[in-house]
Formats: sequence, structure tokens, C-alpha cells
Amino acid sequence: MNQTNKRPEPDAVKRALEVLGDRWTFLVLREAFFGVRRYGYFQRNLGIGRNVLANRLSALVAHGLLKRVRYRTDPDWYEYQLTPAGLDLFPAILTIKTWADRHLLDPTAPTLHIRHRACGAELIPVVVCESCRQPITATDVEFETD
Amino acid sequence: MNQTNKRPEPDAVKRALEVLGDRWTFLVLREAFFGVRRYGYFQRNLGIGRNVLANRLSALVAHGLLKRVRYRTDPDWYEYQLTPAGLDLFPAILTIKTWADRHLLDPTAPTLHIRHRACGAELIPVVVCESCRQPITATDVEFETD
Repeated sequence: MNQTNKRPEPDAVKRALEVLGDRWTFLVLREAFFGVRRYGYFQRNLGIGRNVLANRLSALVAHGLLKRVRYRTDPDWYEYQLTPAGLDLFPAILTIKTWADRHLLDPTAPTLHIRHRACGAELIPVVVCESCRQPITATDVEFETD
Repeated sequence: MNQTNKRPEPDAVKRALEVLGDRWTFLVLREAFFGVRRYGYFQRNLGIGRNVLANRLSALVAHGLLKRVRYRTDPDWYEYQLTPAGLDLFPAILTIKTWADRHLLDPTAPTLHIRHRACGAELIPVVVCESCRQPITATDVEFETD
């Protein structure tokens, strides 16, 4: 840990914030994880203006998190599907959700439960080290730059 | 997966975004994870205005992620330490960082490497299910509300 080191630029988290930090962008992505693909459903579930929604969907396509796929012709209708990069964000968002359930929400507030279909348990995410499979904490790491 | 279900309110991710979604807030937190505790170091490392910094530090204290601790008297000087709730956010931020390294950054850009002191390996986070310890993907979950 070091109080003065320069951080490398461009920083990945800063870049992620540029892409995800907008509240509407995040909510659109969240709907996508719930299975929403079509413009009208995004709009109805979020109560979002058409311009704002179109703008956020385009940005998510430009950043490679969603892809626009035609599902009907004459006239052409499109839906928005998560790309592999978009799907790969799910574990991170789930980890943030669980943190917020623990530390930010009133414990009596209704909670969205997530079930792990693979084993049947309620899904509680744990972030482990790929190498030793032990849970990661903020205090057992060291930072190094290239 | 369901295109039309109402989501529970207040939603944890939406609440987390209210607390963390601001770019400066996030960068202040990131400095805290690097070990920064003092006002002057936050300011110097981030090149942030005094008002903006004071405002973000106060908000992080109010939300329970930092605590303000006196480390010197006459005059009283304070530093900002991560609380258990703040420290508990580290695995989530690390997971976002790794995702951004993979999917957003130019592969030739300098990267911040993190070493897992516990095992000595470069720290690559994997999000697993607490129950079965298998990695989580977006497609093997079901959503349920209370």
C-alpha cells in the first residue's frame, strides 16, 4: 500500500465508469440481465424517455456490451442481446448487489433473491483468487505496475 | 428470465449507484484502497478541487464507507479510514477492474497488476457460488422476489 504512487493510465476502473457509471446505462443493462431484449419492454419497465433509452442502447452497442439483432423483417424489427463481454459483467454486478444488500439497504426492505440453477442454493457470490481459491480481502494484496 | 416482471424497490444496485455512481466518489474510494488516508494525498493524487474532495469524503463517511479518525491534536488533524463496509467493497471493485482490463482496454495499455499476498500468485478474481464453489455465469440463475 502506498500513499503517493502514480496510478497507471488509462485506468481500467476509470474506463469502466465512463461506460457504466451513468445511472440509466446501468439500469438498461440490469434489465438485459433479467432477460429483456426489446425496446418496448426496456421502455415500459424503466419508465424511460425514448431519446434517453435510444441513446443508452446505442452506447452499449458501441462499447460492445449489447448487439443489435434483427428478429423480424418487413418492417425490420431489432432486439438487443447481451454479447459475451456483456454477459461477463454479470458476476461483478451480482457482487455489488450483494454488497449493497448487506451494507446499504434497510434489512427489512424486500430483496431480490437469486437462485443458482446449477446447485439449487440461493446464490451468494464470493470472490476468490483463481490460483488458490481463497476469498479475497482488501488487505492481502499488493499493487504493481508494468 | 422474464421480460415484464416488476423489480423490487428499493433495489440494491440502484442504491449502490446512488452512493458509488459518481466518478469522483469512486476515484476517492480507489485511492483509499491504495492506502491513501490523508486529505492532502487524496488531493494531490487525484488533482481534485478542495470543495469536491471535501464533499465526496463527507458523503462516503455519511454512507458508512469511510470513517474520520483524529490522528493528531493541537490542531486536530483527521484522516479517512475504510470501514468494514468500505473494505468489503474491494472484491467487487476488483472484479469490475478485471472485467474492464479484459473487455474495454487496449491490450497494449499499461495495466495495474495485483498480487495475492496469501498465495503469491497474480490476483485474478473469480466469482463463485458460496454453496457449490462453482464460477457464476449470467445464464445459470433464476430471480425471485420476497
